[in-house]
Amino acid sequence: MVRKLKIGLLGCGTVGRGLVELVGKNDALIRQRSGVELRITKILVRDLDKERHGVDHALLTTQPDKVLNNGCDLVVELVGGIEPARSFIERSLARGKHVVTANKALLALDGFSLMKTAEAKRVRLGFEASVCGGIPIIRALRNGLVGNTIQRLSGILNGTCNYILTRMSEGRIEFEEALREAQAKGFAEADPTLDIDGHDAAQKLKILTELAFSAQVNANAVEVEGIRDIAADDVQAARELGFVIKHVATAELSKDAVSLSCAPVLLPLSHQLAGIRDENNAVLVRGDAVGEMLFSGKGAGSLPSASAVLSDVVDIACHQGGFSMSPGGRVSASSRDSESNHYLRFSVSDPAAIGPITTILERNRVGVARAAAVWARNVSARHQVRVLTHFVSRKTLDTALLDIAGSGIETGKRMILRVAD
Amino acid sequence: MVRKLKIGLLGCGTVGRGLVELVGKNDALIRQRSGVELRITKILVRDLDKERHGVDHALLTTQPDKVLNNGCDLVVELVGGIEPARSFIERSLARGKHVVTANKALLALDGFSLMKTAEAKRVRLGFEASVCGGIPIIRALRNGLVGNTIQRLSGILNGTCNYILTRMSEGRIEFEEALREAQAKGFAEADPTLDIDGHDAAQKLKILTELAFSAQVNANAVEVEGIRDIAADDVQAARELGFVIKHVATAELSKDAVSLSCAPVLLPLSHQLAGIRDENNAVLVRGDAVGEMLFSGKGAGSLPSASAVLSDVVDIACHQGGFSMSPGGRVSASSRDSESNHYLRFSVSDPAAIGPITTILERNRVGVARAAAVWARNVSARHQVRVLTHFVSRKTLDTALLDIAGSGIETGKRMILRVAD
Repeated sequence: MVRKLKIGLLGCGTVGRGLVELVGKNDALIRQRSGVELRITKILVRDLDKERHGVDHALLTTQPDKVLNNGCDLVVELVGGIEPARSFIERSLARGKHVVTANKALLALDGFSLMKTAEAKRVRLGFEASVCGGIPIIRALRNGLVGNTIQRLSGILNGTCNYILTRMSEGRIEFEEALREAQAKGFAEADPTLDIDGHDAAQKLKILTELAFSAQVNANAVEVEGIRDIAADDVQAARELGFVIKHVATAELSKDAVSLSCAPVLLPLSHQLAGIRDENNAVLVRGDAVGEMLFSGKGAGSLPSASAVLSDVVDIACHQGGFSMSPGGRVSASSRDSESNHYLRFSVSDPAAIGPITTILERNRVGVARAAAVWARNVSARHQVRVLTHFVSRKTLDTALLDIAGSGIETGKRMILRVAD
Repeated sequence: MVRKLKIGLLGCGTVGRGLVELVGKNDALIRQRSGVELRITKILVRDLDKERHGVDHALLTTQPDKVLNNGCDLVVELVGGIEPARSFIERSLARGKHVVTANKALLALDGFSLMKTAEAKRVRLGFEASVCGGIPIIRALRNGLVGNTIQRLSGILNGTCNYILTRMSEGRIEFEEALREAQAKGFAEADPTLDIDGHDAAQKLKILTELAFSAQVNANAVEVEGIRDIAADDVQAARELGFVIKHVATAELSKDAVSLSCAPVLLPLSHQLAGIRDENNAVLVRGDAVGEMLFSGKGAGSLPSASAVLSDVVDIACHQGGFSMSPGGRVSASSRDSESNHYLRFSVSDPAAIGPITTILERNRVGVARAAAVWARNVSARHQVRVLTHFVSRKTLDTALLDIAGSGIETGKRMILRVAD
């Protein structure tokens, strides 16, 4: 018995075209595996005349209503951004249509209320494609680990950052050169701000946290740091100490609160996330029953994201029953401030500053595990003092750093990186 | 709105007690996440008087019919083995009850027909717990990657083998000592045959292959090799060459056939499975849309397996709709014989045998990449010749080995390991 499912598609960019390609290519396989025959009945585009290889021109329309009113069973929203995407989704849900979306920005902003709406209308809202592309992490949290209290979740959620940091480490090049490489290879946008400043990863962290911990996360609860200021020197210094620098998003449950962080950190080389290279993503989840579990793979791209959209579509087609799991606001979420080792890099006019700097740190109860005075290799560079601290809270550290700033020793920006547990 | 689900539990061993514990502990969480309230209404045990901490004695019975006829919505089969487990499952399906099982041996033997029965009865058969404990790999294949043609699947599917090989490599100890350690830590049974000879991994490979490739796999299609004969010397020699020895199960699609293998292999240290340590499991899946994807975590144990059972139970409760995905016999499956590098270890009375051995290999078109003549370190040990070959099929290699055997050079068992791609 084959069930038919009519899909209205909003948007035909990278992921949309991937979806059309995948439905065409793996059509028979999907039908055989799931008993569902998928048919894309209408596609909303901005420009009818744009070349779209492999897409049936007769399906295209520039009028949203032609998609939303055409009797489809399910709407796939791939236009992105906040508006008009939100209105499209709300109108679809209101009419009792299931919705599948890859819209990370919208979900991070408003996912909670959209899930509530879907639940009230007894339709489903799928968003596997919004986080980590083809990796079925949403499904794992919603279903595979449903019997677990999630204790901790951390991940490499942004492929652009990971590609740049991998190249800086393995190719021993500076940030700017690595960024240009990433742009040339299509792993970074022309304007890479959202990625390299950490906002993309923070949005994904917010979505994962709301699911994993049933917490409603205030958009400002996550302190976000990007990778712009990391120098090749930092990467090599970290490596000499036995670490690799990765941009890691973390959510951790302690008592009834979830603490969040989203920043570059030092990972021991033996850490499970340390080996995640290039543009790949990974999520490490710790549940009280399953222990530590790793999911990794391609976090973006046309076909990986389309694969995630398809998994939601088929799941909804197979299990039409008005089920939606939404956060219950069970725990509060806030920025993380547990104690950690920290890596510090100071710019100084004289490397002898290692003396006063370590003295001020120790006086402020910031234990110094290792320190190095590093002479500049050429006139354009700055002398540096690098410090690896013992366990210390960020608050205590900040007090010490204020003291160092006040002493006038520093001649440039400093770098602070947490060492992950 | 909370839906209630009555569960009849068959068997209360390690996983059964884990399930009772988890349902008790994470009850509120599950209800809030899924809208389902779980209640275990009856438990089949062999011995009523055995101490079972945390299990309500009033629920216990020694009569299967008391469980199967008590009006439960879903039956969880955890008695294991072929009979009476199969009859229990068949009777439950026949009565239109959903079934969740962790019974890997039964599914490897008869999974295809059980899935067909479930489909015909429009009930669901869940078996997430049968492969890799808490790792949601069945769900990923059934659903998360539903839109992908799976091209290749390989994994470390047996925790006992992986623990032993990890200890042999990191502790530089022999197989027997590592096995005793595994037994002391509860990672190996008193009779470890099924695990260390590869049969457990082969059963899991069969289940995964049937799902991933929609192939019905003949039980004899997998050539199985265990890790009993691997010496500490092999592990160190491999490491010196830049490899680690792991027991890996692989299924690979080529044209319309799936080739299978289940044996110890050499993995380059950079391979994604090379870093999977101790008793952990991992599965690497390559789909045409998602690319390469890794899932890793604890592959066995009371709570991880119970977590997998629970995920099936909640999934069925949330999506009661008579859906079951079964293999369609789309492709054939056979033992793997693609070309690979191979590691060979010969026992010889004189290390000078490196000459004739490499000569015979080359004469038989087995290219020698590296060879070493190794003197025994003490009188009880044997001299060895170790060879790393160029790419060669197992068939060509076997012809050469027959020639070497005929030459009378060897004084003991030889070791052959494939180098994974």
